[in-house]
Amino acid sequence: MALDPSRTVAELRELRELTADEDGAQRVAWTDTWVRAKDWLSAKVAELGVEEETDEAGNQWFSLRGGESDRALLVGGHIDSVPNGGWLDGALNVVAGLEVLRRLAEEGRPTLTVRLVNWADEEGARFGRSLFGSSAAAGSMNDQDELRTRKDAGGEALPDVLARHGVDLDRALDARRQLENAAAYLELHIEQGPVLESLDLPLGVVLGTFGVERHQVTFRGQAAHAGSTPMDKRRDALAGAAKLELEIREIAKRTGKGAVCTIGGVVTRPGIVTSVVETAECLLDQRHLDATQLAEMLSNAEAASRRFAQEEMVDVEWERIWAIEPILFDERLIELADEAVTEVAGTSHRLPSGPLHDAAEISRAGVPTVMLFVQSLRGLSHTKLEDTKPEHLELSVQALDRLASKALAELGS
Amino acid sequence: MALDPSRTVAELRELRELTADEDGAQRVAWTDTWVRAKDWLSAKVAELGVEEETDEAGNQWFSLRGGESDRALLVGGHIDSVPNGGWLDGALNVVAGLEVLRRLAEEGRPTLTVRLVNWADEEGARFGRSLFGSSAAAGSMNDQDELRTRKDAGGEALPDVLARHGVDLDRALDARRQLENAAAYLELHIEQGPVLESLDLPLGVVLGTFGVERHQVTFRGQAAHAGSTPMDKRRDALAGAAKLELEIREIAKRTGKGAVCTIGGVVTRPGIVTSVVETAECLLDQRHLDATQLAEMLSNAEAASRRFAQEEMVDVEWERIWAIEPILFDERLIELADEAVTEVAGTSHRLPSGPLHDAAEISRAGVPTVMLFVQSLRGLSHTKLEDTKPEHLELSVQALDRLASKALAELGS
Repeated sequence: MALDPSRTVAELRELRELTADEDGAQRVAWTDTWVRAKDWLSAKVAELGVEEETDEAGNQWFSLRGGESDRALLVGGHIDSVPNGGWLDGALNVVAGLEVLRRLAEEGRPTLTVRLVNWADEEGARFGRSLFGSSAAAGSMNDQDELRTRKDAGGEALPDVLARHGVDLDRALDARRQLENAAAYLELHIEQGPVLESLDLPLGVVLGTFGVERHQVTFRGQAAHAGSTPMDKRRDALAGAAKLELEIREIAKRTGKGAVCTIGGVVTRPGIVTSVVETAECLLDQRHLDATQLAEMLSNAEAASRRFAQEEMVDVEWERIWAIEPILFDERLIELADEAVTEVAGTSHRLPSGPLHDAAEISRAGVPTVMLFVQSLRGLSHTKLEDTKPEHLELSVQALDRLASKALAELGS
Repeated sequence: MALDPSRTVAELRELRELTADEDGAQRVAWTDTWVRAKDWLSAKVAELGVEEETDEAGNQWFSLRGGESDRALLVGGHIDSVPNGGWLDGALNVVAGLEVLRRLAEEGRPTLTVRLVNWADEEGARFGRSLFGSSAAAGSMNDQDELRTRKDAGGEALPDVLARHGVDLDRALDARRQLENAAAYLELHIEQGPVLESLDLPLGVVLGTFGVERHQVTFRGQAAHAGSTPMDKRRDALAGAAKLELEIREIAKRTGKGAVCTIGGVVTRPGIVTSVVETAECLLDQRHLDATQLAEMLSNAEAASRRFAQEEMVDVEWERIWAIEPILFDERLIELADEAVTEVAGTSHRLPSGPLHDAAEISRAGVPTVMLFVQSLRGLSHTKLEDTKPEHLELSVQALDRLASKALAELGS
């Protein structure tokens, strides 16, 4: 039984049939639909006769024992989705990994153990905490105290819901033992962006995940009557925000390819038609694969905001919401991935990942890691409109399979 | 008993004592505190022996019968306030008018009937319908069907609450008879803006109320992941909104003195830090005393928004929320007001009113009308911080009194 990439496409459709409704995929972690998806995966893998276990963080592991060493090659993804999500985000890797595992199991005992992992709650859709399972396994989860107090929209506490799924929040970090023998980690994912489509390429190799600086930038002026306050007597907070919105685009452009800056939201107060805006709160997100460039973009945005505040006679205040360093994937694995993609698709392309992925957590934990991207149509994701051409999905299964073989050859030697 | 402007200041403080709490004035129309203020006014006027009546719209009238004609000079204001409002907005005129009425009553029978009016619900604070009493008297109220369905924040219906105050919504327009014999209407008000303070002048003469064009301008782009969407692949609705915010200021500047343009609020969707803004809804308010200039400002803003939409590859849509023509006050009364202000304060200044006032409704109904403004400290209004120097308040009482005398002389001749 050789690798059959068309089976992956068929199985993804089967999973969609099982777990989506007319609004899209509903495989939200810690729900019955998610359990149904996991059970479906278990049943598929059971035919291969490999070992299954679920660890302390709720991650699902399928291990094909290797012959020569107790080191392991990990292939991973997440079967959970956002509510009203797409059929591919996360699940593609797990189902493609299943096909690779099938091919390897048929060929007998691999040189290294090969483990397929389905990370628990990558999306964080129910409790707002993404990368749950992978950060537990990586040992980087350090917010248990805060997580204990989290509730979902229905008021149910995170620890109670997880307990019903056999996960004890206090013991989640015991999942770290799963990475003890990890020699490498491979993850295939849809791009969720428009780059590969615009280059007319099916596949790409991911260099790493962007560092992110996320701030709330608040301009504070003076509310004043829109009818009785002459233009030159105003302290309009919205003018500061407007100038910043236009300037961050220039900052990204000056920084060059791969830099992104976004103001994703502005909240204006009092926000009524008869008043000059007193406060404008901007949500600013800046990303770059290079830590120095990222720091420079941040500092340029800060300086610009202070200049605008002065021009507009308003105040400006910065508050960091969240930040993460850039995470660079393993150079040797990037080369192997490049080879695999080139063999399968003719041309490869290296690109950074804007979104975070479980792979970033595993890489941070010191496991050599690489990701493959397959083209997303119109760059859409986290919506039922998310899609990728079937022929591209098939190419991606082939590329993941070749990459696994190359990694096994490299690591086994 | 001659005119005593210091008594007006003392009575305004008395009214504040009676109807304000630590958060400011609470004389919201159709509440017990408003009734208390009206009863306080009645008791004050009762001493003068003039006739009192309340009309079908809840307006309170005090009439000092004249000798020679059944025509009447009206002096008016509103004793209602916004919640947590100031001590002067509206009430100043009523209490200053009381002092003028006192002076006239003492002098005997005036040539024309002089009527002090306290308009009902100028602010519209409880049901969101401003200028209630004056628009009923002016005959311009044409939204009774809609008003029947209005509820306050506590869920009480407007007709029920008005009925408890003796007002039958279906009969409110019968108040039109009050203007049948009106020969002129005078209104004194705090400026609620910074112009007189910046010119260091206590008093000004109001040319009319601005025409207003109020629109919701919606830019529509494409939501896209803030991490995975390169800058040149974005259709960012917020960029359109930012350019418009900056451009309307240029439009107002080019139009010249007296033009104001404001974006009072922006709502961004999805409005999350990880997504490019898909829609940005801007609340645009444009005002000018000249209808042609106002139309030109609107057309310039529309053209600019379409240009920005094209530049940003987004769509733009305009929806009119509300509009009113400029209302110009009576030329002859403006001259008399100028004389009165100059006699009292040495210098006069003519300026438009940005906010609407009951005077606009009365002017629209064809009654020759003029307003006086007295300086507002820091332009503040609709807040307990609203204030005017006592010496300026006293000058304003004198100016209103002189204006009343001049109008009586002019109209009686």
